[in-house]
Amino acid sequence: MKPIQVGLMGLGTVGAGVFHVLSRNQEEIQRRAGRGIELTMVSRRNLDAARDIVGDRVRIVADAREIIANPDIDIVVELIGGYGIARDLVLEAIAAGKHVVTANKALLAVHGSEIFAAARAQGVMVAFEAAVAGGIPIIKALREGLTANRIEWIAGIINGTTNFILSEMRDKGLDFDVVLKEAQRLGYAEADPTFDIEGVDAAHKATLMSALAFGIPVQFDRAHIEGITKLSATDIRYAEQLGYRIKLLGIAKRQAEGIELRVHPTLVPSKRLIANVEGAMNAVMVQGDAVGTTLYYGKGAGSEPTASAVVADLVDIARLATADPDHRVPHLAFQPDSLASTPILPIDQVRTAFYLRLCVADQKGVLANITRILADSDISIDAVLQRESAEGENQTDLIILTHETVEGAMRHALTQMQSLPTVLAPIVSLRKEELA
Amino acid sequence: MKPIQVGLMGLGTVGAGVFHVLSRNQEEIQRRAGRGIELTMVSRRNLDAARDIVGDRVRIVADAREIIANPDIDIVVELIGGYGIARDLVLEAIAAGKHVVTANKALLAVHGSEIFAAARAQGVMVAFEAAVAGGIPIIKALREGLTANRIEWIAGIINGTTNFILSEMRDKGLDFDVVLKEAQRLGYAEADPTFDIEGVDAAHKATLMSALAFGIPVQFDRAHIEGITKLSATDIRYAEQLGYRIKLLGIAKRQAEGIELRVHPTLVPSKRLIANVEGAMNAVMVQGDAVGTTLYYGKGAGSEPTASAVVADLVDIARLATADPDHRVPHLAFQPDSLASTPILPIDQVRTAFYLRLCVADQKGVLANITRILADSDISIDAVLQRESAEGENQTDLIILTHETVEGAMRHALTQMQSLPTVLAPIVSLRKEELA
Repeated sequence: MKPIQVGLMGLGTVGAGVFHVLSRNQEEIQRRAGRGIELTMVSRRNLDAARDIVGDRVRIVADAREIIANPDIDIVVELIGGYGIARDLVLEAIAAGKHVVTANKALLAVHGSEIFAAARAQGVMVAFEAAVAGGIPIIKALREGLTANRIEWIAGIINGTTNFILSEMRDKGLDFDVVLKEAQRLGYAEADPTFDIEGVDAAHKATLMSALAFGIPVQFDRAHIEGITKLSATDIRYAEQLGYRIKLLGIAKRQAEGIELRVHPTLVPSKRLIANVEGAMNAVMVQGDAVGTTLYYGKGAGSEPTASAVVADLVDIARLATADPDHRVPHLAFQPDSLASTPILPIDQVRTAFYLRLCVADQKGVLANITRILADSDISIDAVLQRESAEGENQTDLIILTHETVEGAMRHALTQMQSLPTVLAPIVSLRKEELA
Repeated sequence: MKPIQVGLMGLGTVGAGVFHVLSRNQEEIQRRAGRGIELTMVSRRNLDAARDIVGDRVRIVADAREIIANPDIDIVVELIGGYGIARDLVLEAIAAGKHVVTANKALLAVHGSEIFAAARAQGVMVAFEAAVAGGIPIIKALREGLTANRIEWIAGIINGTTNFILSEMRDKGLDFDVVLKEAQRLGYAEADPTFDIEGVDAAHKATLMSALAFGIPVQFDRAHIEGITKLSATDIRYAEQLGYRIKLLGIAKRQAEGIELRVHPTLVPSKRLIANVEGAMNAVMVQGDAVGTTLYYGKGAGSEPTASAVVADLVDIARLATADPDHRVPHLAFQPDSLASTPILPIDQVRTAFYLRLCVADQKGVLANITRILADSDISIDAVLQRESAEGENQTDLIILTHETVEGAMRHALTQMQSLPTVLAPIVSLRKEELA
């Protein structure tokens, strides 16, 4: 099957991410999609800047309408943003029979009903996983993963800028204005941060999620929106004393009389996972009547995290063209004729760090003997904890954390350490992962 | 379009959940799927026990093969478990041209290659979202949501029994044997808990995820498996002192030489979200080269959480029958002609709890006046915190947490409190959500 041809309107940070991800993971993506996905055309005013990103193999045009006019393009990716020209271009692309992938939450939250109706009339898809929570597949979870449920509520940290600011205010006890300036300096907040700090961006995303959860049209104009500009360090501190953290949440909740749709700073019990989502990370909680509470966490913005969602939408559309059960989504994610023969490694070749607990004689030279055995096996030590022995006791616990090593080396070292006369009991060894 | 007909083999806890969820959310599910999903036939040896669950409107048979033989049945749900009869029945259902939905991780981890090949040859789906992490849509995330990524590793708490035991051991400082007995008494561990506590169940799930992530065949026999039976309270305590928690993780990781596939107790930094997943909850971290770290959290077992995944698979298959872009997955999750007119509520009708900070004169009767105003508005108080005023200071901060109320009532009360002469500055009010 011939590769699906993609044209990209607006080659900024996310657009560059889409190009890099599609190029780098080309082979793996094709094994999943069952056909190639080729970025063949991009539009950007500044042609030279575009060429610096995509080189010479992709056609670069200044006018996005050239992409729409090209009959070879199957899918148009809209990454221009805003409600103005982006709305015209999306509607024109749909009218031209192109599928559309977009990260534009503002556009869909405000003009979604018009755009989805146009797409329906033309029999094309408008895919928007990248519009909410960046690379976290939350649209797919709501639209496909949780279809069994009557959704009761959604509550999400869906704006990284404000979560970064709130984390810093709490950590450092600083006031909003001070932290905003720091966030701007570090690139976590834009020069004009209004949309983020006033909660408008979060409200766009909450509006989209409210429609997906409750089967209602997008109604951004009905959302209640409060930002974080008036929040003081004092209230963050009092909340902490009472066992709460303050997060800017986008909330959509079903009540007997209707739907609540609101964005505002919210006290959340400190022990909830979502209260511990720090910095620019995003997380969305979804409460369904069958599944109970679920939570989805990850990077909500940035070049490649957002590109991850855009490209997933491209794969969904590529898979659509072969919609028999065998092809749409392969059982094991990759096409059955594309499985790899990569071996599963024997445990001796596995790499992890280790926690060791040794019951040792409380005498000189014990630690030296043990560390020499580890060093001889090329295992380096990260931390040592020695329990103080009680008076009259002649043995003690020695805890060692190692850096990463291959398991075979550790097993060899363990045998040697175990045979030392000063090691008085079987050594406990546990693996350790930083998961970072 | 006529409803899709489902037959259910094995009406136990999860089967009952599937029946209840399909019955209760029938209308909502149909609005999402675009057609009805009808459970018309179930099999269970004990017909009376089955009738107690599904009543008289569903046909009950003792022999599961009657379901397979029924030409009206489109999808067979296999909830029998194990590799024995379940394998025969799944292969027979496929041979009969039925789609299969299963929660059976053991079967797929061991016989997946054979079963998927048979399904391919027949052009039917074998869907298994319920096989890993219950209601969390992690199969969908790996198979569709993260398709842009070269997956680097997956690490998951994918067995609720062992996570419950480890949480209790840490919380109460008790040893494994003691906590296991308690878990059995509370129903968190089975009478024969071997598969859970020895890590076999987690290894089945990790095997499935390794195939989805890396495009390799399922190879359960190559997994390295260690359970939690030898873990002591001592090591949990030392790990805590060093800033780590011990979790039973299923890990699949890409190395230069091959894939690591392993289940074992693992030290994890206490500050990671996954280290704070307590009790019988599950969570899976996925690291992709584009998206970075993502995490998926929810209930990994139980009647309705598992049914949530089974029914999502049924909806996926129902949507497959209408695979044009317009129908496969509707833009807003629900079919466009099924959107609801449920209103979005004005903020006055929103229900939340509140945090109030009042700067008040430090004199008698102040608190009484304020609490009377709240009581008159039917707002009940959850907690009060009063800062001790410094010597000579004649004002202080009064912090009040309320129970849930409608916003309109709170606004009315705020106006009245603000007008008290003993309230010396604008009152700060913030909303509070328990998210439980």
